[in-house]
Amino acid sequence: MTMPTPRIRLLIGDTIAIGPGKASLLERIDSTGSISAAAREMGMSYRKAWRLVDSINDDFNAEIVSKSPGGKGGGGAYLSPLGKEMLKRYLSIEKKAAESIKNDLTWFETQLRSKNN
Amino acid sequence: MTMPTPRIRLLIGDTIAIGPGKASLLERIDSTGSISAAAREMGMSYRKAWRLVDSINDDFNAEIVSKSPGGKGGGGAYLSPLGKEMLKRYLSIEKKAAESIKNDLTWFETQLRSKNN
Repeated sequence: MTMPTPRIRLLIGDTIAIGPGKASLLERIDSTGSISAAAREMGMSYRKAWRLVDSINDDFNAEIVSKSPGGKGGGGAYLSPLGKEMLKRYLSIEKKAAESIKNDLTWFETQLRSKNN
Repeated sequence: MTMPTPRIRLLIGDTIAIGPGKASLLERIDSTGSISAAAREMGMSYRKAWRLVDSINDDFNAEIVSKSPGGKGGGGAYLSPLGKEMLKRYLSIEKKAAESIKNDLTWFETQLRSKNN
């Protein structure tokens, strides 16, 4: 039996405002204090991480990731209070959603083929 | 104000057992009775649709999409009773999850920048 894991994306039109990938990047920026260190941990290019951070900041009314001065690649980065709250809410959303669909997840568990992974 | 739309994927390991893309393909197979017509409606290649159908069938204990004889590209396709139930459950999951996180979606609505799209 394999219990499926629900992953949630919040879309605005076709844009992913927040989803597992962006949330994981934000968690790592929060723990490392650096966009490049976060990117490295995810096996993602610095350029892509930077682009994602810019798109997240652009999607919200106020800054989510703040960059401290120090030049490109040099300065640190951290989550703003809004960024911390947003990430916390997103992580709680997955828990609440999983709880609300527990019966369905159990049904899927019985219908999905067992695999060795 | 832009209310974000939650989209859910159910993952088994790294594999998407069911998500918005596969669900949409199944809905169209159900309505058109044909994998190639469903693919056309989605602007997807026939080859890709066929591959997705095979992977869905492979992920579950029993057939989700049944193909009626008629040769490749010729025969029809339809959802098995299990396929219909699975699709119905998946669609209800998104509704239940959205309901359970309504307060969070409202919070995101106030924090996301308004866009013209």
